[in-house]
Amino acid sequence: MDQKQLTDLLTKMTLEEKIAQLLQLTSNLHEGTEDQGQITGPMEEMGLTTDMVRASGSVLGLSGAASIIALQQNYMKNSRLGIPLLFMADVVHGFKTIFPIPLAIGCSWDLELAEKSAEIAARESAVSGIHVTFAPMVDLVRDPRWGRVMETTGEDPYLNGLFARAFVRGYQGSALAEDNERLAACVKHFAAYGAAEGGRDYNTVDMSERQLREYYLPAYKAALDEGCEMVMASFNTVDGIPASGNEKLMRGILRGEWGFDGILISDWASIREMIAHGAAEDDREAAYRAMRAGVDIEMMTPCYVHHLPNLIKSGLIDESLIDEAVMRILQLKNKLGLFENPFRGADPERERELLFCDEHRQAAYDLAVKSSVLLKNNGVLPLQPDSNVALIGPFADQEDILGWWSCVGAKEDAVKLGTAMKERISGKLTITAGCNFDSMDAKQLELALDAAREADVIVLALGEQSEMSGEGGSRTDITLPKAQLELVRHLKQLNKPIAAVIFNGRPLDLQGIFDEADAVLEAWFPGSEGGAAIADLLIGHMNPSGRLTMSFPQSVGQIPVYYNAFNTGRPMDPSKTGERYVSKYIDSPNEPLLPFGYGLSYTTFEYGELQLSSSEITADQHLTARIQVTNTGTRTGVETVQLYIRDMTGEVVRPLRELKGFQQLELQPGESSIAEFTISEDMLRYHHSDLSFTSDPGSFQLFVGPNSRDCLQASFKLV
Amino acid sequence: MDQKQLTDLLTKMTLEEKIAQLLQLTSNLHEGTEDQGQITGPMEEMGLTTDMVRASGSVLGLSGAASIIALQQNYMKNSRLGIPLLFMADVVHGFKTIFPIPLAIGCSWDLELAEKSAEIAARESAVSGIHVTFAPMVDLVRDPRWGRVMETTGEDPYLNGLFARAFVRGYQGSALAEDNERLAACVKHFAAYGAAEGGRDYNTVDMSERQLREYYLPAYKAALDEGCEMVMASFNTVDGIPASGNEKLMRGILRGEWGFDGILISDWASIREMIAHGAAEDDREAAYRAMRAGVDIEMMTPCYVHHLPNLIKSGLIDESLIDEAVMRILQLKNKLGLFENPFRGADPERERELLFCDEHRQAAYDLAVKSSVLLKNNGVLPLQPDSNVALIGPFADQEDILGWWSCVGAKEDAVKLGTAMKERISGKLTITAGCNFDSMDAKQLELALDAAREADVIVLALGEQSEMSGEGGSRTDITLPKAQLELVRHLKQLNKPIAAVIFNGRPLDLQGIFDEADAVLEAWFPGSEGGAAIADLLIGHMNPSGRLTMSFPQSVGQIPVYYNAFNTGRPMDPSKTGERYVSKYIDSPNEPLLPFGYGLSYTTFEYGELQLSSSEITADQHLTARIQVTNTGTRTGVETVQLYIRDMTGEVVRPLRELKGFQQLELQPGESSIAEFTISEDMLRYHHSDLSFTSDPGSFQLFVGPNSRDCLQASFKLV
Repeated sequence: MDQKQLTDLLTKMTLEEKIAQLLQLTSNLHEGTEDQGQITGPMEEMGLTTDMVRASGSVLGLSGAASIIALQQNYMKNSRLGIPLLFMADVVHGFKTIFPIPLAIGCSWDLELAEKSAEIAARESAVSGIHVTFAPMVDLVRDPRWGRVMETTGEDPYLNGLFARAFVRGYQGSALAEDNERLAACVKHFAAYGAAEGGRDYNTVDMSERQLREYYLPAYKAALDEGCEMVMASFNTVDGIPASGNEKLMRGILRGEWGFDGILISDWASIREMIAHGAAEDDREAAYRAMRAGVDIEMMTPCYVHHLPNLIKSGLIDESLIDEAVMRILQLKNKLGLFENPFRGADPERERELLFCDEHRQAAYDLAVKSSVLLKNNGVLPLQPDSNVALIGPFADQEDILGWWSCVGAKEDAVKLGTAMKERISGKLTITAGCNFDSMDAKQLELALDAAREADVIVLALGEQSEMSGEGGSRTDITLPKAQLELVRHLKQLNKPIAAVIFNGRPLDLQGIFDEADAVLEAWFPGSEGGAAIADLLIGHMNPSGRLTMSFPQSVGQIPVYYNAFNTGRPMDPSKTGERYVSKYIDSPNEPLLPFGYGLSYTTFEYGELQLSSSEITADQHLTARIQVTNTGTRTGVETVQLYIRDMTGEVVRPLRELKGFQQLELQPGESSIAEFTISEDMLRYHHSDLSFTSDPGSFQLFVGPNSRDCLQASFKLV
Repeated sequence: MDQKQLTDLLTKMTLEEKIAQLLQLTSNLHEGTEDQGQITGPMEEMGLTTDMVRASGSVLGLSGAASIIALQQNYMKNSRLGIPLLFMADVVHGFKTIFPIPLAIGCSWDLELAEKSAEIAARESAVSGIHVTFAPMVDLVRDPRWGRVMETTGEDPYLNGLFARAFVRGYQGSALAEDNERLAACVKHFAAYGAAEGGRDYNTVDMSERQLREYYLPAYKAALDEGCEMVMASFNTVDGIPASGNEKLMRGILRGEWGFDGILISDWASIREMIAHGAAEDDREAAYRAMRAGVDIEMMTPCYVHHLPNLIKSGLIDESLIDEAVMRILQLKNKLGLFENPFRGADPERERELLFCDEHRQAAYDLAVKSSVLLKNNGVLPLQPDSNVALIGPFADQEDILGWWSCVGAKEDAVKLGTAMKERISGKLTITAGCNFDSMDAKQLELALDAAREADVIVLALGEQSEMSGEGGSRTDITLPKAQLELVRHLKQLNKPIAAVIFNGRPLDLQGIFDEADAVLEAWFPGSEGGAAIADLLIGHMNPSGRLTMSFPQSVGQIPVYYNAFNTGRPMDPSKTGERYVSKYIDSPNEPLLPFGYGLSYTTFEYGELQLSSSEITADQHLTARIQVTNTGTRTGVETVQLYIRDMTGEVVRPLRELKGFQQLELQPGESSIAEFTISEDMLRYHHSDLSFTSDPGSFQLFVGPNSRDCLQASFKLV
């Protein structure tokens, strides 16, 4: 359709039909699904009529080409004007082929692979009938207690923005209208959901507007700049007002300043939840605030369908607001080609062909290899393939390695570490759990000790169950579960080399394993091909290259700890630990255990001299920073050369370091290459106290190195 | 002098003399002190000339009538215009007679005793020559990791405001000009220093302006409403700008909105520290920003003396700003009567008479009794005086019970718990350390176990060293030191009744002692008479009545936890712990171990029916809430009846409970009394998103009870 036809269509719709378009329900409320048909219990609870359900505009959570085709067919039969349903779902890190969790993908620093993972997820979803994914999630997070930290790419606004763009490109492609095997993306959770107080899910968020704009908003904006079609409102408050009813945030910043004219959707029940927040007295006020704020689609609560008619009648809401919202929905349906083909990519045959196909699994493998981070290595890794290995731990032979939000991915499809190791180790390999996730019996321990005694090396596969992170998975204690630490203590007494592999969804407090192990490989939840990837890293078929995108704290008592913090007025001199009146703890370093950007390799890299083409830049004239990097080890490896800048003096205080660029160099043994970065004035802008986004003349430090801590340094001026 | 004379005096001053008035130095930089006279090292370091020191306007840290008289005499000899020095010092919880730490004083909920403690501190300081105290500190704190939490009265804005007023009344009295034995008070640290990120001292502060105004600013404002003469700027940033250079905060809110026209002083070196913050390039810019912001006195750095002359000459700073600042200083000197008598209250004879006199010690005892909080009691307390007691722990015979900031208080003057117990226990009393603060040897443990075996009851005296809190005393681990927990584990195996007394400067994570002990008495750092007060509480000569003014967390991983939090959109139903998608942790309750307002007594109180005089109020018509409270136990006791209100719906979200009043009832066994509270519209106002401070019509809940958790409940409407 063209815009005129859409406008005509809107004109033909009754007010009730229009408002029903704004309602999103799960498929079990609809007739004609593979389920038992319309579920009357929930319908009655929400006070929905059959007409409302029949006219509702979108469905969430259903997948499978056959089911979606059936539901769409049945729906269209009842649609007076032939407006098809939109099908949306949480496709977060893969659909059937599961990629590493987003936090792990972040650690790859590989935007191409990230994009490819989203493209594959889109293809698998699209042929299964889905039109929209509730991804990417780009919330900046500084608190590893929060369970949804596994869904983000980390603590850096710049890097999160790059990944936001890569994911949007991957999901949507370059021509959503023509490509039936892409999805519309929905960036979430707008805004600042990652700053939930105490890391407790759904908790209050409070920060200055300047901090919001400087650190938290850029990644959402980056997704929109890449053409992301939709935005999801977050559960939290932003300056005291729930995002779903926050006019300043939504109409002000999102639509007004940024010009976003796509669909804004609530999160699950988040409009009605304004009542629990104490920001609305009842459903009617919740509907009023959400519509005023500019939320187009209400997910899973009936405030709009029940109360918008009356709010319009009473003049509190102008019908033009409804028309705008409905038009956005019609436009997306039209852009996806649903008026011409309401089934779009849904195709049972393609579905059988594509889902979990070899090509997709290979991409999942590649990303799992690149996402793992070698945190420590005293030389025990890589393993000698002919050594005798005791593979011990609850993750030794474990299929729970997909992570939270793994969509229709099946744990039983996951390649387990034990299985992969069996195929690769020619020496003796014993696999035993040693303990459960969080309990241990004497027999388990005995078997583990026996296995360890007979081995040359112990490989410990430890970690969190997937349900210990993800939505609703916040922890106050972020160490490994006690039974596993107990296992480590017992095995440590054998004085054998220990290589630990950690499967988990958040930066952990590694007390009890980091010092005890000779090597630590952070595997995260590596997805469907995780076991194969980790095994290949352990035995050195592949060389680790991942870099942390969140700091690993010394302990939970040090949270928040993040690299782009401020100097304070009394910075601590680490060489003078005895000084009292400086910003420090009396019982802990200020620095994290492992800094942002950190990760080791089986080879070594040497950095040459850091050379700047000039010691000054202007608004028009940039400078170039160059550094030679040499692989001084014996294996081919990938080095992620990172560029950080510090503005020495600002109108407001500026971070000690901010990531401004990076380059990945793949180098053969003995090979050198030059990393080159261009520094221009626009990289030096920040939000001033009046919220203006500009740069100031003055001195800057520039850092280049393998992580945010260990850098070479130079200075320049903006004049 | 009258204002005209002051103006004339100002006119006679050279620019250099005026700027020197803005400089505050420690006494060792001056000639004529009891020290070796002018210290040239620091003077050269700061680039100060003798003339600058001779004309500097105030001195910090010196005390003692003889020293101050000598310094003032010598200073006046060199003063061209006869302008005397102001002497300022950190008199925080007593001068020579040390009262409990402010956090403990808060727990007394006794404003009269708090006022009296300040009055006594003022009297002792004033006769020792001091004119101004850098107190009260009224920073709201929600993070017990912060060391300076010991200096605040807690987490509640209303209660902090009441204490702020009480302290100001106590220090200043009602007629500062006429009463030589009072001090000018200086409220600190403006603003929001208590919100240092991660509880790390001097660290970044960030919050929305609405939160700043709603929770953090009211206590400073309360002090000023009580007539507090001075304000001290905080070390931290407020929305990115260090307080000492924060024009919006200082000229905008403090001087503009609140009309404060007294002296604003920097904190120690905080003007120059703007350079480390990255908010000033050099001393000159630091001076510029601080003067523009309205800081009158620069403490211990020379940015003003070196750079204000040139800044004025270059037209960047208007000399009128200097004149204003100097006039404020002259006015305070005049108000204190220094032009007439530059020695004011300094009087070696009165000093000998008053310092640590019996009357003052009695007041310190009274406050220590009222500040202690009984956290748990299975009946082991009070002790039978004829029982055999093993008093064990590093605080059993310990003089380090004054706490941080104890001025000229001497530890050796403190009444130790062991000493006091000896005087009170008629049975066998064995006193032994069991361990040091943070280490233990086998012999110590053996002695402790021997003592415990022979006793009927173990009294464990545990806690933090005073240097583990206070300025620069932040901790990431807030449990008791490990050696002490080890001691508890050993003693617990004897299966004897254990009463624990905890000496400390912050809410602790009580794991390892709370469940293990049969009774827990929170003694804080109770001051000079601490041992006597605690002993009298233990044996039941006195009855505990203190109530916590900060929540005690379950663990450090739960921080921040505070009572006036928000409901969120997905509040947890504590009866449904299995629900995943609610705001909670998977490994900890949301609730603190011990809530705000909590504290037990040796008697019991029963609450009758909560009666409201009306179910509605209006802007003009209030309502009255009445409740009968009965002492149902066998001892006289004090019950602190607390009133909380919840605004069910706001334009912004509103706390679950907010303290709005309290009454302390002293009741004999069997006696009843009525607590009555008046609820008026002004108690329902809050800061809206546009920062307006108004109330909204709607529903409110009202809670009355013995703490913030266990309340009776009623509802009313504002119409």
